[in-house]
Amino acid sequence: MVKNIEQENSYNIPKSMKAWVLGGPHEIKMIEKDVPEPGSSEVLVKVGAIAVCHTDIEVLHHGHPAMVEGEAPFNKDFVMGHEYMGTVVKTGPNVDEWQPGDRIAVEVHAGCGRCQKCREGMYTSCHNYSFRSKDHRANGFTTDGGFAEYAVNNINTLVAVPDYLSDEVATLTVTAGTAMYGLDVLGGLIAGQSVVVAGGGPIGLMFIAIAKTLGASPVIISEPRSDRSEMAKKMGADFVINPLVEDPVEKVKSLTGGIGVDFAVEASGVPDVVNQVLHMTNRGGKVCLAAFSNGLTPTDLAYVVSNNIYMFGIRGEGNSAVRRAASLLNQKRFDPSPLHTHTFPLEEVDTAISYAENQTDGAIKVVVKMS
Amino acid sequence: MVKNIEQENSYNIPKSMKAWVLGGPHEIKMIEKDVPEPGSSEVLVKVGAIAVCHTDIEVLHHGHPAMVEGEAPFNKDFVMGHEYMGTVVKTGPNVDEWQPGDRIAVEVHAGCGRCQKCREGMYTSCHNYSFRSKDHRANGFTTDGGFAEYAVNNINTLVAVPDYLSDEVATLTVTAGTAMYGLDVLGGLIAGQSVVVAGGGPIGLMFIAIAKTLGASPVIISEPRSDRSEMAKKMGADFVINPLVEDPVEKVKSLTGGIGVDFAVEASGVPDVVNQVLHMTNRGGKVCLAAFSNGLTPTDLAYVVSNNIYMFGIRGEGNSAVRRAASLLNQKRFDPSPLHTHTFPLEEVDTAISYAENQTDGAIKVVVKMS
Amino acid sequence: MVKNIEQENSYNIPKSMKAWVLGGPHEIKMIEKDVPEPGSSEVLVKVGAIAVCHTDIEVLHHGHPAMVEGEAPFNKDFVMGHEYMGTVVKTGPNVDEWQPGDRIAVEVHAGCGRCQKCREGMYTSCHNYSFRSKDHRANGFTTDGGFAEYAVNNINTLVAVPDYLSDEVATLTVTAGTAMYGLDVLGGLIAGQSVVVAGGGPIGLMFIAIAKTLGASPVIISEPRSDRSEMAKKMGADFVINPLVEDPVEKVKSLTGGIGVDFAVEASGVPDVVNQVLHMTNRGGKVCLAAFSNGLTPTDLAYVVSNNIYMFGIRGEGNSAVRRAASLLNQKRFDPSPLHTHTFPLEEVDTAISYAENQTDGAIKVVVKMS
Amino acid sequence: MVKNIEQENSYNIPKSMKAWVLGGPHEIKMIEKDVPEPGSSEVLVKVGAIAVCHTDIEVLHHGHPAMVEGEAPFNKDFVMGHEYMGTVVKTGPNVDEWQPGDRIAVEVHAGCGRCQKCREGMYTSCHNYSFRSKDHRANGFTTDGGFAEYAVNNINTLVAVPDYLSDEVATLTVTAGTAMYGLDVLGGLIAGQSVVVAGGGPIGLMFIAIAKTLGASPVIISEPRSDRSEMAKKMGADFVINPLVEDPVEKVKSLTGGIGVDFAVEASGVPDVVNQVLHMTNRGGKVCLAAFSNGLTPTDLAYVVSNNIYMFGIRGEGNSAVRRAASLLNQKRFDPSPLHTHTFPLEEVDTAISYAENQTDGAIKVVVKMS
Repeated sequence: MVKNIEQENSYNIPKSMKAWVLGGPHEIKMIEKDVPEPGSSEVLVKVGAIAVCHTDIEVLHHGHPAMVEGEAPFNKDFVMGHEYMGTVVKTGPNVDEWQPGDRIAVEVHAGCGRCQKCREGMYTSCHNYSFRSKDHRANGFTTDGGFAEYAVNNINTLVAVPDYLSDEVATLTVTAGTAMYGLDVLGGLIAGQSVVVAGGGPIGLMFIAIAKTLGASPVIISEPRSDRSEMAKKMGADFVINPLVEDPVEKVKSLTGGIGVDFAVEASGVPDVVNQVLHMTNRGGKVCLAAFSNGLTPTDLAYVVSNNIYMFGIRGEGNSAVRRAASLLNQKRFDPSPLHTHTFPLEEVDTAISYAENQTDGAIKVVVKMS
Repeated sequence: MVKNIEQENSYNIPKSMKAWVLGGPHEIKMIEKDVPEPGSSEVLVKVGAIAVCHTDIEVLHHGHPAMVEGEAPFNKDFVMGHEYMGTVVKTGPNVDEWQPGDRIAVEVHAGCGRCQKCREGMYTSCHNYSFRSKDHRANGFTTDGGFAEYAVNNINTLVAVPDYLSDEVATLTVTAGTAMYGLDVLGGLIAGQSVVVAGGGPIGLMFIAIAKTLGASPVIISEPRSDRSEMAKKMGADFVINPLVEDPVEKVKSLTGGIGVDFAVEASGVPDVVNQVLHMTNRGGKVCLAAFSNGLTPTDLAYVVSNNIYMFGIRGEGNSAVRRAASLLNQKRFDPSPLHTHTFPLEEVDTAISYAENQTDGAIKVVVKMS
Repeated sequence: MVKNIEQENSYNIPKSMKAWVLGGPHEIKMIEKDVPEPGSSEVLVKVGAIAVCHTDIEVLHHGHPAMVEGEAPFNKDFVMGHEYMGTVVKTGPNVDEWQPGDRIAVEVHAGCGRCQKCREGMYTSCHNYSFRSKDHRANGFTTDGGFAEYAVNNINTLVAVPDYLSDEVATLTVTAGTAMYGLDVLGGLIAGQSVVVAGGGPIGLMFIAIAKTLGASPVIISEPRSDRSEMAKKMGADFVINPLVEDPVEKVKSLTGGIGVDFAVEASGVPDVVNQVLHMTNRGGKVCLAAFSNGLTPTDLAYVVSNNIYMFGIRGEGNSAVRRAASLLNQKRFDPSPLHTHTFPLEEVDTAISYAENQTDGAIKVVVKMS
Repeated sequence: MVKNIEQENSYNIPKSMKAWVLGGPHEIKMIEKDVPEPGSSEVLVKVGAIAVCHTDIEVLHHGHPAMVEGEAPFNKDFVMGHEYMGTVVKTGPNVDEWQPGDRIAVEVHAGCGRCQKCREGMYTSCHNYSFRSKDHRANGFTTDGGFAEYAVNNINTLVAVPDYLSDEVATLTVTAGTAMYGLDVLGGLIAGQSVVVAGGGPIGLMFIAIAKTLGASPVIISEPRSDRSEMAKKMGADFVINPLVEDPVEKVKSLTGGIGVDFAVEASGVPDVVNQVLHMTNRGGKVCLAAFSNGLTPTDLAYVVSNNIYMFGIRGEGNSAVRRAASLLNQKRFDPSPLHTHTFPLEEVDTAISYAENQTDGAIKVVVKMS
């Protein structure tokens, strides 16, 4: 893998850059900020594009789940954004795993590597979450993220982007990784298992795409909005249920020989949907909780116990799932590009976030593309 | 294993027997009933002793979860009771796995062996539950149980009872199996993992005993009643929390270096306790739901997702857990005898049930001993 | 699922049928034999087509691994053959899972359902293997198989065949199931993992097809024969290695960034290849042994221990893998039809076996098609 | 956890120390060497005692498996030794997980934290093994070990030592961790499973102790030397087989109802024993390879495949197994002290190694105790 040294040196990295930072709650502004320096195990990334995630909106309004050394991220010149891709332009000391010029997408979590959870491989559950002094990084949550011209990333959080993918679509790699992780924790092969996904937002739609790609059958979505149902079909759903029109539990049962699905995914975040999802699940089946609402959710735990159901809350996109999702993309095994609906320049991050938040103009994935 | 043929033939099996059967809801009565005949893969057991389980009380009042060919068990001369032990007195055709004279305890579920779940080894989740015509048996729930002088059991549901155990204590084998199953589904070795159990009823106390035996540390119980806390200490609890006196979540955290336990068991069936249990659990930790209340439980699913928690509803005592629990008993690795608090003769099954239901006189495990 | 009663009654099942049975070792002959009667949990299948498997040849010459009640299968009018498909023409008592007219393919093992292994879901490891009196069935090995006009099958061993598949190609369903099982025991998702298969016989080629379908990358085959390499490419191999021309271990390392593959499959049965396969495997990687030669194999166990490698011997096609393979076929996710190279009528089973044994005319899968 | 500051400051750490280093092959000598400085995530340990491991002898004679930045460890002033315990005397920057004064034992592997294997939690299979520049450490193999007065350890490699354990016995913690890891990879609960261990060296004896502690039954050892058999009984073996006197395979079968054990451990390193171990294993059972000889081992892989046996090579003591073993020791659940047979002062490391190598005077674990 010989690299042209001339080329490597040709990245003229400026001293400062444009970056959108959090002010107080609900407040985001573009400032000029120093370009960061990659340390050991790190690289500097020139951001190419970044997608808005629902979590960004949570951070903007409530600070949660972002923390900087255990504190809220407000008024710290903190840069949000974690679903980005770009180009490696500089490597830190002792880094030879990546080279300047590599086109990459990122995942969020670089665990501390020293706590019990990291040692077990559960780096998204790192006990030193938010403590940079202990080598933890979760860009866009606890360390500066990607709504900026440059970002520093741990080498652990990089995956290669195939040439054929546009910058905009490549930002969806991490979303695909979340779906991959959700199916992963369910355990074992997905092929020939029945799957239902409740909720056709970006995460739910990615679950549909990945489940279909891995051979699940049937793949069912329950989603009230027709534009999202249509998108689910494009992503590979075999059956579409409108839960406002028909009983989604009865419908799922009728599609699965009366017994319910092997795997069910709650991706709506709507409290009432949780019990629908549980009741859609086969005795001895498994449920992935990939979304949630704040507050307590009235949950039919009696059904869970009586039916030997296992429920898996998932945090982030652990277990190298982004790497596996990137492999599927590299193989052109599914096409996430329809999920990308809108593009804005860096100067309009606030508008981009607003589109995503309000689903303006049918927005699913809103991307900010650097010039 | 030479058996004395004289002895084998010496079982004088009568034509009829005393049996307690369900009338309508809340109604149980002793009648004379035909002694059943063991079929293929079955044996006839002369019942020695039987314990009252909380589920028996559910069946008595609500029919649930007992069903006979899909219907409620009332007014069918149905015999309740599933926590029993006794002696094999006759074997069905082609049975050589057990011999007349073998002293055994029973587990509940003999799956149909033909549905997808049974084929996967998840026989307690059998899709043909309650359908005797498809070879399913769950004695005391879907087929006649042990509040009688004789019962027929599938050979799959028998485990050997060691000589040193009294009939009364041997009835607790299946309860121990439930706890073993609960820890089993949590996955992997228990040694050196921290465990909390909420609720000091028979199941919770057995979880304490088994977790301690398998090397969990620390083993913590949260239980408001002091007599039950004392019992938990006897069973091996390292720490006892009275949740009415101190904040059980804070206490568990302080006992586990601030991070919560690896494994938490909800064994109280009290709705409010569910969230306590969740909040006691380490990020990336696991929760076993071993009890439940009817109706919906307000549950902090946001916490579950944010903390990558897995929740396992358990049904019965699958995965041959009773066999493994029996092995621990055979090795004298823990002593369940303190859990046995009261004994009644067969003629007083109604009183025995009342004691268990009302926890009369501090009753934990109430046993009916045949004369 | 209403069925036309007229149609169901229209199957004129004769009293006797043509069947190829084993004489002494190396001897197979066609006789007239009674059509068997399906018992409880069983159906009668009118065989449509049956493929010759390498194991059939083992049974023909050495009896192994077939046994009838623990004894060699010679001179017992035993019918070989296990890779068949056909039509359900009659159901046994209490069977409503399948209906006359259903088009099905079969898997081999119906465990006893009463031993420890069956109870754990490991029915291909049944402890009562070969004992029909304990309800075990492995058609073509311990009970009559498919080189005949009719066969009785346990309902557990049936999977639906999609309409688009020809009878000949549908016989490959069980072979696909073996590959699925091999990947299954390796654990977890295959997507994005690197896989090498050594040996391009029917099993090896199916491993290639299934691994590719499930998203493995890269998928590599090591096979000296060019016709088989070409077939491997058709089945989805990304890279082909000729181990007689280049060092297969070095080549695999160069294709995997120097570290070797995540999963390696030994499907050649050639002793020297075992160590190649081990050395192709990443530290902490997994190896599936899907073939073997008789006698002891000199094995680099030092490498296995030093590199934390896990080796999985697989027996048959357990864990409902055939059902999952059938689902992929039903979804048209891969095309096994090129593996089917030759067809003979029932009258020429001996010739068919000879073609398969000697790989006459480049034979891969030789199928016997009923008229 | 208030610490006496006076005490913490009272560690007078010298500039140089006594250390035994490798010269050429077979050559070890005591020199004066600089006391190392702990870096980020590290502490300085004052060594209290260190046991000789069989691997030390491999390193001394052949360099293998020790490497320093990929090269043999000879003539580099390299300090061997990895089974040690001691006291934390200084912490590196940002370390608050441990405090000066903490009494600890060590495990070997601190993975790089950046390769795929470390990210999966398989740090003993680290792809950057031996590369200190990438933060890998395996003290005594790739970085300086414990045959010296001081050693630097990554905080990941420390476990607390309970007060009641002597320095000498506390060195056995890591050996117990290896046995724990071996049982761990076998998967799931050990209670009630049958286990055989072939070979009564320190590792084999620890397997006996841990298997017994976790509730395995029966626990069987096959070992020709009577002193080691006696030790195995002390450690908890239920049955002892002398393979020179009786057929060990037949004996194991007779002790397990004719079917063989669930788990078998090869801990002898004798080639012929491998097939004994395989044949002792139940169909569908699991085998841990915890020892090996150099060269190829004639292995009955036909048996492995035909019987669906899984074989697990284990490298080191991964998956935090040492932490769990330390918990069992802290609970006084087993007593490893009989394994400690001889003690020498630091000045006699060469003699200590000779005793261990030649099993002089029945030596099992030979310990060097600092004055």
